[in-house]
Amino acid sequence: MAVALELAAHGRGRTSPNPMVGAVVVRNGRIVGRGFHEAAGKPHAEVNAIEDAGDQALGADLYVTLEPCNHTGRTPPCTETILRAGIRRVVAAMRDPNPRVAGGGLDYLSRSGLQTVAGILEAEARRLNESFVKFIQTGRPFVILKCAATLDGRIATRTGDSKWISNEQSRAYVHELRHAADAVLVGINTIRCDDPLLTARLETGRGKDPARIVLDTRLSIDPRARVLSVDSEAETLVVCGCPVDAGKKAAIEKKGVRILEAPVKDSHIDMRALMPLLGQMEITSVLIEGGGRVSAAAVAAGIVDKVVFFYAPKILGGDDGVPIFRGVGPRLMSECIRIRDIRTQRFGDDVMIEGYVDSTPF
Amino acid sequence: MAVALELAAHGRGRTSPNPMVGAVVVRNGRIVGRGFHEAAGKPHAEVNAIEDAGDQALGADLYVTLEPCNHTGRTPPCTETILRAGIRRVVAAMRDPNPRVAGGGLDYLSRSGLQTVAGILEAEARRLNESFVKFIQTGRPFVILKCAATLDGRIATRTGDSKWISNEQSRAYVHELRHAADAVLVGINTIRCDDPLLTARLETGRGKDPARIVLDTRLSIDPRARVLSVDSEAETLVVCGCPVDAGKKAAIEKKGVRILEAPVKDSHIDMRALMPLLGQMEITSVLIEGGGRVSAAAVAAGIVDKVVFFYAPKILGGDDGVPIFRGVGPRLMSECIRIRDIRTQRFGDDVMIEGYVDSTPF
Repeated sequence: MAVALELAAHGRGRTSPNPMVGAVVVRNGRIVGRGFHEAAGKPHAEVNAIEDAGDQALGADLYVTLEPCNHTGRTPPCTETILRAGIRRVVAAMRDPNPRVAGGGLDYLSRSGLQTVAGILEAEARRLNESFVKFIQTGRPFVILKCAATLDGRIATRTGDSKWISNEQSRAYVHELRHAADAVLVGINTIRCDDPLLTARLETGRGKDPARIVLDTRLSIDPRARVLSVDSEAETLVVCGCPVDAGKKAAIEKKGVRILEAPVKDSHIDMRALMPLLGQMEITSVLIEGGGRVSAAAVAAGIVDKVVFFYAPKILGGDDGVPIFRGVGPRLMSECIRIRDIRTQRFGDDVMIEGYVDSTPF
Repeated sequence: MAVALELAAHGRGRTSPNPMVGAVVVRNGRIVGRGFHEAAGKPHAEVNAIEDAGDQALGADLYVTLEPCNHTGRTPPCTETILRAGIRRVVAAMRDPNPRVAGGGLDYLSRSGLQTVAGILEAEARRLNESFVKFIQTGRPFVILKCAATLDGRIATRTGDSKWISNEQSRAYVHELRHAADAVLVGINTIRCDDPLLTARLETGRGKDPARIVLDTRLSIDPRARVLSVDSEAETLVVCGCPVDAGKKAAIEKKGVRILEAPVKDSHIDMRALMPLLGQMEITSVLIEGGGRVSAAAVAAGIVDKVVFFYAPKILGGDDGVPIFRGVGPRLMSECIRIRDIRTQRFGDDVMIEGYVDSTPF
């Protein structure tokens, strides 16, 4: 199953809105077939693994990181492929989290006379597909809040200088996060200050760009902002909330940028209301990359599932640098937002701390 | 040598102003004697190890974490004990960093016909005695800046609530840091807000309390502050800088508290000028425990050698919580203070990040 999970991860960034899935066919204790779901619309992992095994699949065991599907979607049901290949036993890491199909695949295989097991390395499998699991169960994207700060918690100096806080290794990892995410989201201030491209530039070559979402309540974006005319297979989406200048809107849309109107709350985009809209667009995961107001609004709206904070080995030493969050915090420590399942990772001398917002059920 | 270093660490908190030293006597590849320097005024590690070895020391090798002394201090020179015991070879992790005695011990032993080696696990030995090394070479204490913050870099909420940010395991480690330090230093605001005891309460029993230093330029401390009447073998020292009320001064001194006058700079205690004064009092190490103004002043004064930051798995989510540092920071990221030799350690779900201020030569 560990091998199957590794295989699954090869699909990262390409399978949405499907999950990443890996599968291996095992015969006499030896792996005779491997497969993973390469991209949405392409064959499922089980099919690839069984095809890889060829005749060896007959009487073999299939290890798969997610319960095989039993319905016809973009591809025929995997259960039929499994039955046809003569697989003897199916071991799944986790059941299908989709409330519409729960239990279908394994139950069907079981009724068809195969041995079935579920729950092997389940925690790892759920973590791998945390975005898919949340999306399929709620219709809303899984939201990661990322920031890079000094050890004293500043994301820029008092003059706004932030190039660079984190090192190249950390920044390379952020590009992997973008590659894995369906969308990256920033506030208009970040566009104004940093004019970022928000594309996924991987060390191993071109990544899969996420959709770029800019929160811009009043459509105040500079038409020359790089994010509006970046060469990318993914679209840029400007979310505004007020009646906006029709001419400006048309000019921006002419660049191939989509403009979405979303509800406003306290004169900013209502992030809680925005998430189901993104879900309807099959955006299963969003990476929030600041700035401080958007990050604070996201946390306050309760939409953040996971935080990924990079700490660079630097100190500013004052209180006038740009803070990670803007706005009003709680009165008491007991009212803070708790983060659980903390994990740390080193990127050179940068330290990443990541964890899940405690209220998140995923 | 690794065993000798472990032994040395058993003296932590007790040897100042001496270094921690460990020694083992090895004969035919077997350890036949172990010793460490238990406390200032007590026998040196080499003497304890040789005594432990007894007759076995004859013709044996001595591994010691610091070059043996060749002068009569509070105890007779160790070189004589080594010669008398018939040791064949002496391996030292590092040479004596004291510029007044450098090279004396090993050179003398070498001239007396023993084999000598230096520099085995030297980096570890220097790190173990980083306080002693700095103190003996500069006359100023080694300064550690400690803080406990949320992931977004706040040491308290906007109302000043900080109980508790870090967890019990982290706080237990802070008591170990206090035990290891000669002095703990805070600003008057911390006394006012938290009224701390600043003693070393170890899980394994009573620790060695550090001296408690309170920076209080105008001697505005509340005479009922707990730090003024704590039951402790270590003294409390209030550092003031202005002409102060003689009656209040006398009243506080009557409690057994020492009042030290130090130079003032920009209407606060000049921390740079204070350090040699503490050095003259044989304070070889200082643990700064806040608050934000004192921490910022210490960093700005260039007196901080090491930072120990705890990050608790919590987020406040605003910018009105108490920041780690108060005051004016730099304009550009390139002007930040760099921290090197970053090390991380987990205390439950708290993450400690420690490292050395880049300008520190130790």
